[in-house]
Amino acid sequence: MSVTTPTGFRAAGVTAGLKASGRPDVALVVNDGPSHAAAAVFTANRVEAAPVTWSRVAVADGRLDAVILNSGGANACTGPEGFADTHATAEHVAGALGVSSGDVLVCSTGLIGERLDMPVLLGGVDAAVAALSDTGGPDAATAIMTTDTVAKEVLVEGDGWCIGGMAKGAGMLAPSLATMLVVLTTDAALTAPELERALREACRLSFDRLDSDGCMSTNDTVALLSSGAASAQVDEAQFTDALTRACRDLAMQLLADAEGSHHDITIEVVGAATEDDALSVGRAVARNNLFKCAVFGGDPNWGRILAAVGTTDAAFDPRTLDVSINGVQVCRAMGVGDDRSGVDLSGRTVHVLVELHAGSEAATVWTNDLTHDYVHENSAYST
Amino acid sequence: MSVTTPTGFRAAGVTAGLKASGRPDVALVVNDGPSHAAAAVFTANRVEAAPVTWSRVAVADGRLDAVILNSGGANACTGPEGFADTHATAEHVAGALGVSSGDVLVCSTGLIGERLDMPVLLGGVDAAVAALSDTGGPDAATAIMTTDTVAKEVLVEGDGWCIGGMAKGAGMLAPSLATMLVVLTTDAALTAPELERALREACRLSFDRLDSDGCMSTNDTVALLSSGAASAQVDEAQFTDALTRACRDLAMQLLADAEGSHHDITIEVVGAATEDDALSVGRAVARNNLFKCAVFGGDPNWGRILAAVGTTDAAFDPRTLDVSINGVQVCRAMGVGDDRSGVDLSGRTVHVLVELHAGSEAATVWTNDLTHDYVHENSAYST
Repeated sequence: MSVTTPTGFRAAGVTAGLKASGRPDVALVVNDGPSHAAAAVFTANRVEAAPVTWSRVAVADGRLDAVILNSGGANACTGPEGFADTHATAEHVAGALGVSSGDVLVCSTGLIGERLDMPVLLGGVDAAVAALSDTGGPDAATAIMTTDTVAKEVLVEGDGWCIGGMAKGAGMLAPSLATMLVVLTTDAALTAPELERALREACRLSFDRLDSDGCMSTNDTVALLSSGAASAQVDEAQFTDALTRACRDLAMQLLADAEGSHHDITIEVVGAATEDDALSVGRAVARNNLFKCAVFGGDPNWGRILAAVGTTDAAFDPRTLDVSINGVQVCRAMGVGDDRSGVDLSGRTVHVLVELHAGSEAATVWTNDLTHDYVHENSAYST
Repeated sequence: MSVTTPTGFRAAGVTAGLKASGRPDVALVVNDGPSHAAAAVFTANRVEAAPVTWSRVAVADGRLDAVILNSGGANACTGPEGFADTHATAEHVAGALGVSSGDVLVCSTGLIGERLDMPVLLGGVDAAVAALSDTGGPDAATAIMTTDTVAKEVLVEGDGWCIGGMAKGAGMLAPSLATMLVVLTTDAALTAPELERALREACRLSFDRLDSDGCMSTNDTVALLSSGAASAQVDEAQFTDALTRACRDLAMQLLADAEGSHHDITIEVVGAATEDDALSVGRAVARNNLFKCAVFGGDPNWGRILAAVGTTDAAFDPRTLDVSINGVQVCRAMGVGDDRSGVDLSGRTVHVLVELHAGSEAATVWTNDLTHDYVHENSAYST
């Protein structure tokens, strides 16, 4: 259950020394083919990190031979020098593997605004190349962790093919995309355009609807590599479905490990005129700090949900809004519904249902509560 | 220095018993004329409280004789019954004062989604009418406090006229408007349209740029009443300027008393192509939880500012962005600038300067840091 489970991939995770903690910090995933088709999606943040700028170009031709990833530094907001560092990293990987640097995707994660220690990183690249193995997936998943408390991996099996994946991300989770690095591998033989269509659809229904803290990263990358080593034929629709399940599984692992979170909150918006309306309402609730604090406090303060819904321009008549929390309809027709004291918020999962009564579209957004631990972790991150 | 400092106003603040704490919870401000011209602005939240729905209509004709305010309950999301409660409150005030209920503005603040205890509230109205005095302003300012730790009042003096004001608000502060109730009084003789123009302009440059926690309230109201009791003539431009200063003063008092805040953060965006661009960048930074946690932790983590700026669609070339924190240019041309360790965040005030290099427009947004105390206060508010 890792990126090396599909046939045709090797990986490694090593300790280069970028992290003060001494934990593993460099990961490498290599596609040995026969196919090298690939696709990737990146952060929508206009302030994008150097590795994102590099990687957009690298994947543009639909071919990737390797993905090099480092934790311990985001290489974001580091100017032309930072881009040169990313370029040098790709060249170093390419030289060691005997491939073209233009087929090497580069991902970095960590503090923004600090240059990477290049001798340390390149030493890590050499060590990772030496450690490559077809069972190296779990080590790679461990080496990309930052404030993650657990490594995140997934395996979805098809009929004679499979999809493996790893993810890192625990804060700065927001749509388009959540802050995270994700590498997905498959031995199914698909063309680059097929991979891209499948990846965009899978992300749209998974990572794009994860909004832990409303903060959009500069480094988000989701890469999908196909080795084509499986002899079984695969149907694009089936593959997209499997990929969506893999991405949702990883998204839920990210949610469960979000920095300082005590609750996983599912916000389901139904009765919307359009899916976009449902999404905008879900996101507004997911980003309401007061609501998120209330959930942390075990307080079914549904007025804060209504106040968030009211800030959107989604189609609805405010007088008809219904809201349920964990199955109790606490707000009915924008008035007081069932007794809020009947809502049990003692468990980890919270389900909020917002009914707009404006149509038949729906969307679900996932978020976390806002806790003392979140404030603590994020007030002391770079120090 | 209160709403009763301008000639022609009486006020009172009493304890009705709406608050479990036993603190004052009903305030009344009466305009004895000779003019009764008035204007008001309200929350942009589509989920608006019953008193907002009532008060929009009450002020529509440009006349107000009184403002009745209660803390201890927002009367929001309370359905038709809640609106009937607001109506009954206005009728009761009108009967006691011998005015029309259609000239009584009603404001409520407190928990959303609970009916008001009407016998208790109406008893408070009677007590407030009995206690009315031309020195009652400070009592009124005290009676509208919720989680405020201090009463908020202002006085701006003109040439033979003055503006008095009071405000409450400590959480759910967001633009259009900050969560708050504000009553401003003046003895200057202006028409209702003049008052409305002045009030909109003053709010645009003060309360609308306060974004403590990004959460928009259901009850925000800013009312301005003119008694015309001053014989001095007043120029509309001079009055607007004085009113803007009064509103800014109250806005800064709200900022300084925001729930759980340890820092007051001024985000100044310059070099923008348009004022709207500058505002959207300022708001994006003001709503970035990760940046706000970093300030709480005394950490000049400027990468989080850049990541927030990058989420906007304001005109700028990311490669030219400069960011300074408390006078230290930590980010230059989207690269590493001066040493971040030179930034002193030990004081209460923090100044962030974002230079977009895209034009000559500018705007300033004010916010607070995100602290353990904020989470604590807001996870236990309704319980």
